[in-house]
Amino acid sequence: MFGDTLLAVTEGKQISEGIVEGVVDLLGVLAYGELSAFDRMAEDARTAPTLSGRAALASMAAAEIGHYDLLSKHLAGHGVAIEDAMTPFRHHLDAWHSKTAPKSWLESLVKAYVGDGLAADLYREMASWLDPETKDLVLTVLADTGHSAFAEREVAAGIAADPKTKDKLALWGRRLLGEALTQAQYVVAERDGLAELIISGSGDLSGIAALFRRLQQGHTKRMQVLGLG
Amino acid sequence: MFGDTLLAVTEGKQISEGIVEGVVDLLGVLAYGELSAFDRMAEDARTAPTLSGRAALASMAAAEIGHYDLLSKHLAGHGVAIEDAMTPFRHHLDAWHSKTAPKSWLESLVKAYVGDGLAADLYREMASWLDPETKDLVLTVLADTGHSAFAEREVAAGIAADPKTKDKLALWGRRLLGEALTQAQYVVAERDGLAELIISGSGDLSGIAALFRRLQQGHTKRMQVLGLG
Repeated sequence: MFGDTLLAVTEGKQISEGIVEGVVDLLGVLAYGELSAFDRMAEDARTAPTLSGRAALASMAAAEIGHYDLLSKHLAGHGVAIEDAMTPFRHHLDAWHSKTAPKSWLESLVKAYVGDGLAADLYREMASWLDPETKDLVLTVLADTGHSAFAEREVAAGIAADPKTKDKLALWGRRLLGEALTQAQYVVAERDGLAELIISGSGDLSGIAALFRRLQQGHTKRMQVLGLG
Repeated sequence: MFGDTLLAVTEGKQISEGIVEGVVDLLGVLAYGELSAFDRMAEDARTAPTLSGRAALASMAAAEIGHYDLLSKHLAGHGVAIEDAMTPFRHHLDAWHSKTAPKSWLESLVKAYVGDGLAADLYREMASWLDPETKDLVLTVLADTGHSAFAEREVAAGIAADPKTKDKLALWGRRLLGEALTQAQYVVAERDGLAELIISGSGDLSGIAALFRRLQQGHTKRMQVLGLG
């Protein structure tokens, strides 16, 4: 029985032409993450204090859709409708966004920066467990679109203009991480395929613990770069 | 004196490195049109009845930003900040959007389709009056991003499902055109450089009348394609 489980974990359940359930899950959550980040950033762009800020956040939002299209084509090529792949993750990602709705322009920027960074770290770790084609796709989708420099500049300028925002934004960053980890745990608990992918990829439970530690370290570094560490 | 005016009309006022005031205006209004269409479509995407509809409208929105970036680079290359070029047009374009805020998913789609088409026709006409480099830029920015087929399908399906929406949407299309022409007239009345470009490009007042007739004909054709003619 233990041998059977191990086999299932290693090979995954094939649900379509050459693509296992856990990989469909991974690409589905990634895709819905892009689509919902687009929504969020597009809405937040309207609160920008300047036209150039508005355009910069709109560009970050548009980049998410470019990535979404790549994922959609890849899944379609394997006979999977992206809508079906995304559906299981709507609830938890929507919950993350509604629990972390920014109340100011700087909160929007910190969220876009921290959220993108956290997602990139997580998916980059997972990419190394995938077949070369899917790995390339995930790494392309995560490529820095060059917008983070904008967020860094704007946040630094905001703190310089009003130093007492710094503590508030630091708290905000911690809340973003906390809520993300909470929703991520729900997702993994509900999706067997994804859990199998993570367990087989990271090796074992201590591998998962090490993965989460690395995610937190990456977050801490990003907060320091923003001047909020 | 007549000769002086004619010269100003033909050559335009140089406001920066090799770019005349009317062209800066044209690219500015085009850019703000893209940015505000992005806003509108991104907001409307959230009212989509399906995930694939939401992704399709989000893709249309993202395409606007791709075009915006091209315009931004071109203007920057001529020493003009895109924010400065856009500023004179914010008020009238925002007014158009607030006077034509869609109240349903089908109204959103008709607006995206009709608004994009109208803008494309106008700018395509104007492109033929420009130097080859700017002309290429404008034509690239207007290239159909392949999303109109989606709007056509969705509107047809919506009318088939509920035939009495057809008359309402036909009225909606007329209102979109009327409000667009109203705001366009304000813009031209306020911006001398743009007015000069249109007058010198279209030849004379009868040329302008003919241009407006062609825009209306294009609109009528699009309404027919949508099944609303």
